[in-house]
Amino acid sequence: MKSLKVFAPATVANLSCGFDVLGCCLEGVGDEMRISLSDTSGVRITKIEGADLPLATNKNVAGVAVVAMLEALNDTSTGIDIEIYKKIKAGSGIGSSAASSAGAVWATNQLLGKPFTPKQLVKFAMEGERLASGNAHADNVAPALLGGFTLVRSYAPLDVLKLNTPKNLYMTIIHPQIEVKTADSRKVIKSNVPLNKAVTQWGNLGGFITGLFTSDYELLGRSLDDVIIEPLRSILIPKFKEVKAIAIKNGALGAGISGSGPSIFAMSKGKETASKVAKAIEKVYTPTGITFDIHVAAINAKGVSEII
Amino acid sequence: MKSLKVFAPATVANLSCGFDVLGCCLEGVGDEMRISLSDTSGVRITKIEGADLPLATNKNVAGVAVVAMLEALNDTSTGIDIEIYKKIKAGSGIGSSAASSAGAVWATNQLLGKPFTPKQLVKFAMEGERLASGNAHADNVAPALLGGFTLVRSYAPLDVLKLNTPKNLYMTIIHPQIEVKTADSRKVIKSNVPLNKAVTQWGNLGGFITGLFTSDYELLGRSLDDVIIEPLRSILIPKFKEVKAIAIKNGALGAGISGSGPSIFAMSKGKETASKVAKAIEKVYTPTGITFDIHVAAINAKGVSEII
Repeated sequence: MKSLKVFAPATVANLSCGFDVLGCCLEGVGDEMRISLSDTSGVRITKIEGADLPLATNKNVAGVAVVAMLEALNDTSTGIDIEIYKKIKAGSGIGSSAASSAGAVWATNQLLGKPFTPKQLVKFAMEGERLASGNAHADNVAPALLGGFTLVRSYAPLDVLKLNTPKNLYMTIIHPQIEVKTADSRKVIKSNVPLNKAVTQWGNLGGFITGLFTSDYELLGRSLDDVIIEPLRSILIPKFKEVKAIAIKNGALGAGISGSGPSIFAMSKGKETASKVAKAIEKVYTPTGITFDIHVAAINAKGVSEII
Repeated sequence: MKSLKVFAPATVANLSCGFDVLGCCLEGVGDEMRISLSDTSGVRITKIEGADLPLATNKNVAGVAVVAMLEALNDTSTGIDIEIYKKIKAGSGIGSSAASSAGAVWATNQLLGKPFTPKQLVKFAMEGERLASGNAHADNVAPALLGGFTLVRSYAPLDVLKLNTPKNLYMTIIHPQIEVKTADSRKVIKSNVPLNKAVTQWGNLGGFITGLFTSDYELLGRSLDDVIIEPLRSILIPKFKEVKAIAIKNGALGAGISGSGPSIFAMSKGKETASKVAKAIEKVYTPTGITFDIHVAAINAKGVSEII
């Protein structure tokens, strides 16, 4: 095998109750990439379509992630060429940089005969996140690599867990095309939180994870509540409250900010409900005049995958 | 049925990573109670053995809990006599007041033909906790009533979940007989916590619950880590660090403060390891001169139960 074409999925991090630790992977929303072995050693970005991103290896998240991986292997001879066909918009809050980092390391790992497990690839993909936002977070790259729902139990040492994926769960995602950079969106967050709110938050995270393992959809919905981050960050997202309310009114289990925004997710049982929610959100957003995309996506239990 | 004898189990709340939300129920450690229907309406504490506790109904946690239950039924005619054979010492941190409240409402519910589900009984037993500590917490009464491991997802509205109980889990509990009142032990806690520590804590709670549902014992152990409460509260417990270290050195998965202390729990896979841990802890504690009890107990998956 000399070359591999992969689907690099979008992801939703935080999921209201799991700031910096929870994430899930989306089906059908994501980038395509072609990773090829080359006779010339080193890592090169040879093509980028669909976005204005740097071709320099050390400035491109996919380049940086693959370099970190080869360094861990003490591999100075392998040559890797990366083509990126970007479909996820940068700054959307659905893991654009994570998709590129995860897709590149996953494909390279396949081409090299799988020296690493998917869990071991997380730390290399995190180097891409460090470049993108100054913070090597794992809550997007973990679900992109492992699929389904994931939990970053600990960063030091890194301990990433794959959770259960209940059947028939769908996400409706609206991406209002305003720019909210991860770095800006971190600035509104306070560095101290009241203990009673932290208790509420971890009660909900516990409830959400219990809901995943017991396929209790109502419990998932009740647990999608964020008393710490959402009240602060949602002010950066036009019509957030209205979108959340209309999603729930139309049958969504719950809704919240995707990652650091500005995308908003709504989780539903069944594709029909998720599509109904999409139409209702569209009606709320169209009058604002803000350009937006809406996706309806199943949970992707596999993560990055080969396109055959 | 006119009379019922019950086993009212001890419980371990918080479990390091789940302050105010997690708890588990113990096998073989607990009180006995006899609850009887009487022809004279009203609730009476007719006998207390093993502890110096008030006989006045409105000053006794069992009395208050049963009164709350009868009030919810608008029942002014039923008569209930309560005998309490106390074996759990008050102020031990293994749910002494919760055992009495939970045992009394569970037995009364049986005698009345089960008007309530065990989950519905939690809020009545919480009234006993309110009397005992000024705070109607549920993290001891929930596991006492439901058995196994429980999560209080939310207090408003009350939402209590029963989690999974992996096989062959044992607790070693040491109760140093010094007085640490719940109210005092709450005073050392700070009302604000750094967000990064809260993230660490909810990552661990998520890991612990994942460990329960996947019976991943190593994961349970890794998740038994408390970066918020334990560093503050453990200063009230002599030799806490040494006990925790020796427990883990002898094979325990993890260890921490039971409830608000002063009891310390260590969780082990298998009774043999739990007994070995007990012996090691005993060696650490004997030279202090402090009187102490040590219990080795399986997780009690049933909760309060009838003694036949």
